[in-house]
This record gives sequence, C-alpha cells and structure tokens, in this order.
Amino acid sequence: MRGEIVNVGTEILIGDILNTNAQYISKELSSAGISVYYQTTVGDNGDRLMEILKKSIERSDLIILTGGLGPTQDDLTKESVAKLLGLKMELHTESYDKLLSFFNSVSSKMTDNNLKQAYMPEGSHIIPNNNGTAPGVLIEKDEKIFILLPGPPRELIPMFRDFVYPYLLSKSPDKFYSYYYKVSGVGESALEDMLLDIIDNQTNPTIATYAKPDEVLLRVTANAKSEEEAEEFLRKYDVIISERLKDNIYAREDISLNQVVADLLIDSGTTLSVAESCTGGLILSRLTEIPGISKCLHSGIVCYSNESKIDYLGVRKETLDTFGAVSRECAEEMLQGLVKRNKTDMAIATTGVAGPDGGTTAKPVGLVYIGIYHNGIYEIEEYHISGGRQRVQMKTAAMSLNLIRKKLKKG
Amino acid sequence: MRGEIVNVGTEILIGDILNTNAQYISKELSSAGISVYYQTTVGDNGDRLMEILKKSIERSDLIILTGGLGPTQDDLTKESVAKLLGLKMELHTESYDKLLSFFNSVSSKMTDNNLKQAYMPEGSHIIPNNNGTAPGVLIEKDEKIFILLPGPPRELIPMFRDFVYPYLLSKSPDKFYSYYYKVSGVGESALEDMLLDIIDNQTNPTIATYAKPDEVLLRVTANAKSEEEAEEFLRKYDVIISERLKDNIYAREDISLNQVVADLLIDSGTTLSVAESCTGGLILSRLTEIPGISKCLHSGIVCYSNESKIDYLGVRKETLDTFGAVSRECAEEMLQGLVKRNKTDMAIATTGVAGPDGGTTAKPVGLVYIGIYHNGIYEIEEYHISGGRQRVQMKTAAMSLNLIRKKLKKG
Repeated sequence: MRGEIVNVGTEILIGDILNTNAQYISKELSSAGISVYYQTTVGDNGDRLMEILKKSIERSDLIILTGGLGPTQDDLTKESVAKLLGLKMELHTESYDKLLSFFNSVSSKMTDNNLKQAYMPEGSHIIPNNNGTAPGVLIEKDEKIFILLPGPPRELIPMFRDFVYPYLLSKSPDKFYSYYYKVSGVGESALEDMLLDIIDNQTNPTIATYAKPDEVLLRVTANAKSEEEAEEFLRKYDVIISERLKDNIYAREDISLNQVVADLLIDSGTTLSVAESCTGGLILSRLTEIPGISKCLHSGIVCYSNESKIDYLGVRKETLDTFGAVSRECAEEMLQGLVKRNKTDMAIATTGVAGPDGGTTAKPVGLVYIGIYHNGIYEIEEYHISGGRQRVQMKTAAMSLNLIRKKLKKG
Repeated sequence: MRGEIVNVGTEILIGDILNTNAQYISKELSSAGISVYYQTTVGDNGDRLMEILKKSIERSDLIILTGGLGPTQDDLTKESVAKLLGLKMELHTESYDKLLSFFNSVSSKMTDNNLKQAYMPEGSHIIPNNNGTAPGVLIEKDEKIFILLPGPPRELIPMFRDFVYPYLLSKSPDKFYSYYYKVSGVGESALEDMLLDIIDNQTNPTIATYAKPDEVLLRVTANAKSEEEAEEFLRKYDVIISERLKDNIYAREDISLNQVVADLLIDSGTTLSVAESCTGGLILSRLTEIPGISKCLHSGIVCYSNESKIDYLGVRKETLDTFGAVSRECAEEMLQGLVKRNKTDMAIATTGVAGPDGGTTAKPVGLVYIGIYHNGIYEIEEYHISGGRQRVQMKTAAMSLNLIRKKLKKG
C-alpha cells in the first residue's frame, strides 16, 4: 500500500511548530508495512489544500491528514476532503451531544463556531478523541482511504495508537504482531548499544525505540502469516532482550512508570510519603496523575527552603550548616523525619543541585541524593546527572519512581 | 516572494529522522518576509523528485532543497535541478581542489563517487560548507531561485545563517514585524470569538493563535517597508487587543506563565507557601522549574489524605466530617493552617474532585476550590472544570498560578 502524509497548518509553514507528527506517523506506517512516498505541509488555505489533495488521491492509496479539524474559520480539512470526494457534510449526532455535554460540564456556552466540529463528511467513521474536542475521521471511498486527525500530538498519538494502527494492520495482507517493552534507567542510545547486533540485522522482526525524556519504549514487530508464527519469532527475541535489559524493563505494554508504581502501591496496600527538595513536586505530581493513588499516598512535602526542612522534617540545623542541604546526611535526616512523622510503610526523599546556578566544584550541578525507606531499612543513593535543570529534575523523579518500583517488586 | 521547501531523503519518509530543517528554514524565511506555502519531503527517487520540482517551479519563486548532495548513487538533487532547468553539469575546479585537499588531510584516498560532489550545474554560485564535504548551490534562472543545501543541520545551519539569509534579505523589499501576547484564563476558541472581527478582516497585520493546554499565544504580524510603519500598524491593533483581553494577557513575549509568576515573586521579594490536594504537586513542580525560585518558595504540602490535612495544616476533623475535603470550608482551613504555620506573604491552597471517580451529584468531578491569601486577606474561589483528570489538574494549577499573578500585579 502507498501512503502519504499531509500536514495542514500555517503554524508549521512559518516555523512556529516542529512537525513531529510527520515523523511519528511515518515510523508507524513503515512498521505496518506501508510505504510512505510523500510528506507535504500546506497552510490553512482552501485552494492550496485542494491542489495537494487532488495530487495525493492520484498517487496514493492512503492519505493521512493532520490538523485543521478545530472550530475556527481557517480549519478546512474535513470540508476540503468532503469536496474532493463529492460528499455532503452532515451533523453527526453523537459528536454533537458529546460537544454539548462538554460545554455544559464547563458551564460555558458553546459558540456557533464550535458546532462546526460536529459536522462530518457523510459516511465517515468517527475516531474518538479522548484528549480534545475534535474527533478524527476515517473515510473509505473508491479504494482510497482518508484518515483525518487533529494536530496536537497529545491528541493524535493516542488516537493513532488505539484506532488507526490496528485498523491499518487489518488492511494489510500480512499480519504484524508486536511485543512492547517499557524501559527505565537506560537512555535511548545506551539501549540501542545494548541491542546493536539485533537492531543492525533486523529484517523480521523489526525493532524500534521511542524515547521520552525519562523512559524508552521498545517495540519489536514481526511480520507473519499467523499469530503462531509471529509468536515464535517474538519469543526468540524476547529471551535475548529480557536477558540483556533485566529489571530495567518495567512493563511489557505501553504504560507509564507512574502507572506501574501506583498499581504496585495500590495492589500491595503500601502507604507512601514523599519529601522533595530538588524535584520540587515532580514525583508527587506524577503519582497523583493516577486515579486511586489517594488510598496509598499519605502526604508529600516540597521542602525547598532550609527552614521547611527543619520545620517539617526535623532536619538539624547543624547538619545543614556542616554538610549543606545537598548531602547524604541531609537526605538521611529528611527521610528519617518523614518516616517518624507519617509512619508510612515506605518513604522517599530527594535533595540535589538542579542548576543552572548553585553548583560548586565539590557539589556540581547534577549531584543528587535519593533516600528510600522500606521494610525498616534506610538507604541513600548518590547520582550524577548531566544536562540542564529540567533534565536533572525529570531524571531524578524517574529514578525515584524506579527505586520504589524495584523495592516493591522485591516485596 | 513565494517560497517552498523540498526536503529530499528516504530516511525522513520512514521516520528515522525528525525533519528539523523544515522548521528552521521556514522560521528564517518568515522573518525575511518570504511566505512559505509548501514543505514537501520526497525520497531519494529521481522520478518522484522531478515531479515535485516541476510543480514547485510553477508555483514558487524560491525553492530551497535540502539533502541529496552527497557522493552516493542515490544523491540526486543537483542532477535533478540541472535537468529541470536544462543546465549541464560541469566540474567546479575550486570545489574539486577543496575535496582533494580534504581527503589528503585525512590521509584517505578520494573514491570516484566523491568526485560527484565537485560537479555543479553550469552557472551555479557555490555556497561554502565548512562542516562537511558537500558544498551548497545557488542558481538564479528566469526569475526563479533554487538553493540546494546539505541535509545535516550542523552543515546546513551555518551555511544558511552566513550565506543564504543575508542573500535573501537583499532580495526582499518588505520586512515583517510581530507583537506577541500570552493569554491565560481564556481558551483558544473563546479568544478567537473575542477577536473575530479583526481576525476575519485580517490582511495586514495578520493574527494567529497557538493553543497549549492551559495558555494561548497570540501573534500579530505586520508587513511593512520600515520598522516605523510596522509599529504604527501594530500599535493600532494593540489598543484593541489590550482593551478586549485586559489582564488575561500575562506577557507580551512568548514566555510561560510559570516564568512570569516566578519573576513577579522574585522581583517583589514575596514569599509563598502552597498546599495542594487535587493538583497533587503540579503547582509546585511548575514553579520549581524556574531557577531562582528557592528565594521565594518556602515550602509546599501535598496533603492528599485527610490525615495529612489535619496533621500538617490543622484542618479540623469536624470540618472534614461535616463538609468533606472538597469544600469551601476545608479550603479555608487549609489556607489558614498554611499561613499560620509558614508565615509567608502569600499562600495558595487547592482542593477538588479530579476524577474519574469520587464525583457525586452535589460534588461532581471538576468541582474545585482555590484559596489564596495575600495582604492579610483570605479568599476562596469556586470553579467547575470539564474534561478528564489530567485536564482538571492542569487547569486548576494554571488558574492558581494566574490568581497569584493577578494579586501580585495589583500589589
């Protein structure tokens, strides 16, 4: 199958936005066995969009469009595709009801331009959007497939993953099956190094890595005639990958480290308290993203100032004066104070130099202590993290969550 | 002048490479007053590249190509452009000498395919490449301009900056100037509604909105002969926009709300403490992203459990029993406890139903109380926020930061 991608948005053409969607979709199409021959970006302009659409329907079987599905006058994607295919726009009742209940729930009046988002080309299949108001659209007509998705990656990616990718696999004569691995504690290039021999020789299965700032998704995809044949391929590689990555694999499906840690806490009924200095609330905000965590998360302290370390956690002034706030000794007293006060089963404390200022030769930016308490034992780990302030904070939060995970896994 | 960008490279089409060149060049062209109407990526394939080139010469005055200038068989960009324009390829002596001395300097034999890099379309201007072996090419013919650059950004960017950009400025009669507005507390479509009349009639200046989950960037761009003329346009619209958006405009440059709030706290020397229930650390983590905030941020409590609200903030058990944790009364006691304990100039507290569970008819998901203390006054605001858990948390955090900003602005 020949595919192409059309990204609609003036903000891409003037360079305000980096077009990460084109790469994401291209990678996914490749792994589904679809050849991508063109990526085109065009602005929010009806004539120029129509010119591209006419060309794309001549040369491709599958056209994926992103952007231009919103409520405003210059959102033209649905209308242009409908015009190209000679389809009427009609009100999609379910989308209308959803929009209406959204605006009711925010106690805000739905303006007329929002109504536009409930009109769809006749015969469309609707792709639900759980992270925004504009649904996606799938149209099959005369052996051609059009898929229209909203521009923001946080809306597009879940829709592609949960709906478009399985749909495309079902269209392909060969079947593709994937194993997923979520990895924490190993960066993307280190991970590729660890698997270099099997990545380099890949034909079937193919191996792809997708990096986020503090976790990596590894996908191994086999192309096979049957599920059994695919399983055979994948199990062979699973042995090698499991052996090399060991307990850095935190999940075998695409879920976040936050979710895994929250599930472990909830399932084991373990209570947790947290004291954050350098991470400034990041561990807490990642955990509280997960529904149900209130059962386990007793409380958290963001003790950014020395006074709050003394006041809330009972860190001794002499410890701060002698060793400083970024020290093994301070981390230990933070942790002890936290446990004494909250009496939770588990506790975690962070202190470090996040930068950009405050680093010295003895205590450079990136020096971090993480203290963890579990099963009556206090442990303090020292880390040296490279990169800017945000990276130091994110990596420290991820390593803290990973420490909790490893302790709970051991039981 | 109408420009377009053609990126040549199969590695982009299969998603191995993120196309940062398209964004970089688009941004530069915009700022040089050149409208970019298309970005196209095509693989290393002669027929498909020629198809795009034929189209681009019809519709654009300036065509910038990246990639496909290397020594291998599938590097076809120069050859394809020469064929399109009816130009012969000829040996460029200076480039040949440079290549030869490069290979001598690395004590490596120049292979025949490398010689290809010294052949140029007749009449080309050569753009020197100080970071690689493939020079760039500039061709002016029949009122059309072709600029060919190598793909790697570390080669392309210095060549663009030092040679292409000054060349383009010399070609453009008009200049573009922009005013930026960052807006909080108004969604993208409500914002467009508020400015519909001026957006609809826009020709010069043009008005564009770019939404993030909890803030909107508004850009107003004037095309003028001089900076003075542009200022005159922009100031006229500035009066209207300022009047309509009032203090929802939190900055007149593209910076985050976190940064603005942190700057206001730091500049005024205001100390802050935070108590977060439903936002679970998000306000704290957004503030602690900003370097220097430690001067003002005393401490924060993530009091997710009832016990921690009692223990750390002195909320009364009777209040929780009678009104519940999500209530005006609880928010008020959280805030009072926080101020009593930390004695900061300012304090903020959140409690709400983030969902997806825990909502009732009386207290539905999205019901949120934000308490703020400033200048000796306690205020509790009630909000109803729609959407999923993440949206409720993000909007509550953004509204809390916005409340802090408004109070500090008033002084």
